[in-house]
Amino acid sequence: MIELVLIGIGTGHPDHLTLQGVRALQEADLVLIPMKGEDKEDLAGLRQQMLARHGARAVLAPFDLPRREADDPDYLGAVERWHDAISRAWADQIAQHLPGGGRVALLVWGDPMLYDSSLRIAARLPVRVRVIPGITAIQALCAAHAIPLNSLASPVTITTGRQLRDHGWPEGARRVVVMLDGACAFRTLPASNLLIWWGAFLGMPQQILDHGPLEEAGPRIVAARAEARAAHGWIMDCYLLARPD
Amino acid sequence: MIELVLIGIGTGHPDHLTLQGVRALQEADLVLIPMKGEDKEDLAGLRQQMLARHGARAVLAPFDLPRREADDPDYLGAVERWHDAISRAWADQIAQHLPGGGRVALLVWGDPMLYDSSLRIAARLPVRVRVIPGITAIQALCAAHAIPLNSLASPVTITTGRQLRDHGWPEGARRVVVMLDGACAFRTLPASNLLIWWGAFLGMPQQILDHGPLEEAGPRIVAARAEARAAHGWIMDCYLLARPD
Ligand SMILES: C[S@@+](CC[C@H](N)C(=O)[O-])C[C@H]1O[C@@H](n2cnc3c(N)ncnc32)[C@H](O)[C@@H]1O
Ligand SMILES: C[S@@+](CC[C@H](N)C(=O)[O-])C[C@H]1O[C@@H](n2cnc3c(N)ncnc32)[C@H](O)[C@@H]1O
Repeated sequence: MIELVLIGIGTGHPDHLTLQGVRALQEADLVLIPMKGEDKEDLAGLRQQMLARHGARAVLAPFDLPRREADDPDYLGAVERWHDAISRAWADQIAQHLPGGGRVALLVWGDPMLYDSSLRIAARLPVRVRVIPGITAIQALCAAHAIPLNSLASPVTITTGRQLRDHGWPEGARRVVVMLDGACAFRTLPASNLLIWWGAFLGMPQQILDHGPLEEAGPRIVAARAEARAAHGWIMDCYLLARPD
Repeated sequence: MIELVLIGIGTGHPDHLTLQGVRALQEADLVLIPMKGEDKEDLAGLRQQMLARHGARAVLAPFDLPRREADDPDYLGAVERWHDAISRAWADQIAQHLPGGGRVALLVWGDPMLYDSSLRIAARLPVRVRVIPGITAIQALCAAHAIPLNSLASPVTITTGRQLRDHGWPEGARRVVVMLDGACAFRTLPASNLLIWWGAFLGMPQQILDHGPLEEAGPRIVAARAEARAAHGWIMDCYLLARPD
């Protein structure tokens, strides 16, 4: 019997972790540590420090994260096959380290519910899944700017850079959060009186913030993003757009 | 000099609190404790226990939360006046207990960014505001059901029961989270093949969950909600609606 605990660890600040998360780290027998051949050493490091700091006694199982076929014209099919491959990598580690069953943990960036595949991958395996929520990038963004997500009792749309670029401003929306945007999709919006609150590396020492009318702040953000990306080798950012009330 | 820290405490589970939240509780000089004449003793109790558990040394300042004129035909004006009155109540407590300045904390249900007025009220006062994000009801809902919020790289709309009732299904949306719904607004949607994941008292000992096709689960939820509300004297619930992929 395997229990797989997906622990949301927040988005960069080690103290985003909840007390529930601390306990789950401490109770794990095995922690799966996906290694990406990328630029994200900082992130793997954060995970390892978190485990050490909270006295986790789990065996650490680093494994090479399978790569997605980026050029596959069948995008959804490629994602499915990629998730299949990741689930096999998890299953291998689990079979190797916990042949008699036990508690496996995966430290998930932010919250496992938000733009993350771990739940879909876990659904492929014969395991019991438990989720520990964690602070999302949206929350880190609003906290850093000390702003509410919604205007008074109004709706909010959460979307991706690709959606914003391909489908424009979501019909009827007053406020839109944009994540997973590698290319400043706000530039594709028609001129308007939108406001933007932007944040990169939220919660981390290198955090950058900017906000203002999109027309003024947009170009500043494009420049700051390019510069920070060059300096650090990678970047994670997101933003809230709002029509003025 | 007053720093006002809005600490998101999560939505009912005391271990939703983050390590950042624990530290902020411990560093506070004064904690504002709004007392509602309502049925929510359980919630005031949770706050007091949290402070005691983490060795907070702050002075506790309970105060009667001003009431909103529920019958005022000028809804927005009434909300503005209500927030004015709350800000004055905060200012009174602060002046009384911290004449020389210091750190004031307010324990905010969930996360201060989401359908909460504390940030708007704080903006009326000459204080420095800091926000500590906390687990929202949306996260508690998804965690309890072990489901993702979004379908693959797709948008999500967060809205209220009133909006759903008055404006119907948000244009173009695939997934909709509904909060602040005192009257099961999903009943006002036309017959469809929507799916629902519902949760009440999320994270609390009395937590209730249900899910399924809206046509089947909807009537069960209406009944369970009425029963739980009668049993406990109050209820807090929210849900995710999805068009099947
Ligand atoms: C694959 S999604 C994962 C989201 C995560 N599960 C969460 O709960 O926030 C990654 C996206 O989240 C946003 N993000 C995550 N961490 C961030 C951070 N520290 N600062 C800014 N944006 C961040 C970026 O938009 C990034 O493209
Ligand atoms: C005034 S809003 C505050 C939301 C809060 N700031 C948050 O971050 O979740 C209150 C609404 O949140 C939802 N809610 C809060 N706590 C909940 C819980 N424990 N279980 C279910 N729903 C909850 C309900 O929809 C309720 O009407």
